[in-house]
Amino acid sequence: MAVKLTLAYDGTAYHGWQRQHRLRTVQGTLEDALQQIAGEPVVLYGAGRTDAGVHAEGQVAHFLSTRCLTPTDWTRALNALLPMDIAVRAAEGVPDTFHARFSAKEKQYLYRIHNGTIRDVHRQHLLWHIPKRLNVGRMRKAAAFLVGDHDFTSFCASGSLQKDTHVYLKAIVIQKRKDEITLTFTAQRFLWRMVRNLVGLLVKVGTGAVLPETLPAILDARDRRAAGPTAPAHGLYLLKVAYD
Amino acid sequence: MAVKLTLAYDGTAYHGWQRQHRLRTVQGTLEDALQQIAGEPVVLYGAGRTDAGVHAEGQVAHFLSTRCLTPTDWTRALNALLPMDIAVRAAEGVPDTFHARFSAKEKQYLYRIHNGTIRDVHRQHLLWHIPKRLNVGRMRKAAAFLVGDHDFTSFCASGSLQKDTHVYLKAIVIQKRKDEITLTFTAQRFLWRMVRNLVGLLVKVGTGAVLPETLPAILDARDRRAAGPTAPAHGLYLLKVAYD
Repeated sequence: MAVKLTLAYDGTAYHGWQRQHRLRTVQGTLEDALQQIAGEPVVLYGAGRTDAGVHAEGQVAHFLSTRCLTPTDWTRALNALLPMDIAVRAAEGVPDTFHARFSAKEKQYLYRIHNGTIRDVHRQHLLWHIPKRLNVGRMRKAAAFLVGDHDFTSFCASGSLQKDTHVYLKAIVIQKRKDEITLTFTAQRFLWRMVRNLVGLLVKVGTGAVLPETLPAILDARDRRAAGPTAPAHGLYLLKVAYD
Repeated sequence: MAVKLTLAYDGTAYHGWQRQHRLRTVQGTLEDALQQIAGEPVVLYGAGRTDAGVHAEGQVAHFLSTRCLTPTDWTRALNALLPMDIAVRAAEGVPDTFHARFSAKEKQYLYRIHNGTIRDVHRQHLLWHIPKRLNVGRMRKAAAFLVGDHDFTSFCASGSLQKDTHVYLKAIVIQKRKDEITLTFTAQRFLWRMVRNLVGLLVKVGTGAVLPETLPAILDARDRRAAGPTAPAHGLYLLKVAYD
């Protein structure tokens, strides 16, 4: 039986998604809980690897188990065993051909910025605090140059082994509500650190350090050094993974 | 020169407001920062003592110092020295007769409840998670019995030395937005743990365990054992302290 899980977690206390020897990771924590319930080792396949400190509202993962529980029972048993900063939002039975990563049609990432003078004492690990006022109009103008089919080498982490750097970036939605600015990115797939690198540059546009009109040249450079810094991990959320 | 500070803090990592030997407290942390700036020991007087784990959005405190800095400079210097979970929202010069506690005319406390089935992985320390659906209408009906001038002995922490247990509770406002329920309490003064004890009972009304109509009898009992349990500290915020 294959089970698909929809997961939320706070990445603050974890060394990212992927299981690592002797380090506390989200995948490792979930696999330990699954093994306790199933009474056998369980391998969990995630739709995307989130880096250390990155959060998720809708990570998707699947596993196979000979233990026959209803989706509701898996949800209850897991939520009872898991630490408070990981939650199973939903579980459902899926065909054995389902694969959280390879069946995914689209992903959505959210980046949250706190754009206020005084720091938010409660949400230091949840939003990137930028005291300097950002111009959202300019950021939207720059984002328009990024949407579409491009070679995103300038926004791909140096050291990445990804060969195909062409990505169809379907949408970037930038919203402002009170002192919070959110950026939502939608694409079929993303390169390593791509969202954080895009946010890093868009923030430089927002402060006025980079002009929106220079975006095409930055893309054309196909050089990570041409773009801005990498935004910190703690403002990033894997929001949604869509399937057929 | 007397300076009035308006403070926000996340109480999670602190043993409450009041300075204690060898324990990390909000007052102690602030006094240490003030001493570093002033070059002399500084005593800080808070409007209200918050218990361990309780947060503040608008705690008020004052201090006297021979060091002459503008309010803006005090704010900047303190925010640069303080840990990220304490922030000075405002500073202003006040007459030497001003006292954060004795000049206060009114206080407002906020209590936040997360009333949803699945736990909120990001805000475990910011809201009281109650998975069982609460009936807000019933809670409001019960709250109406509490507003006004009453002897609140039934809601005063046992072991408290407070002699005058009469409080004029000006208002209780209960609001629901999505899966968050907030309760705002306004009064000239509060007894020790009074807000958390009121919330503990109002939640029992919300689940149906206590009927709103029994509230007058609970007040009349003048016995802590007549009321409900104490709500946890981490949902409570000192929201505002008002002065003339």
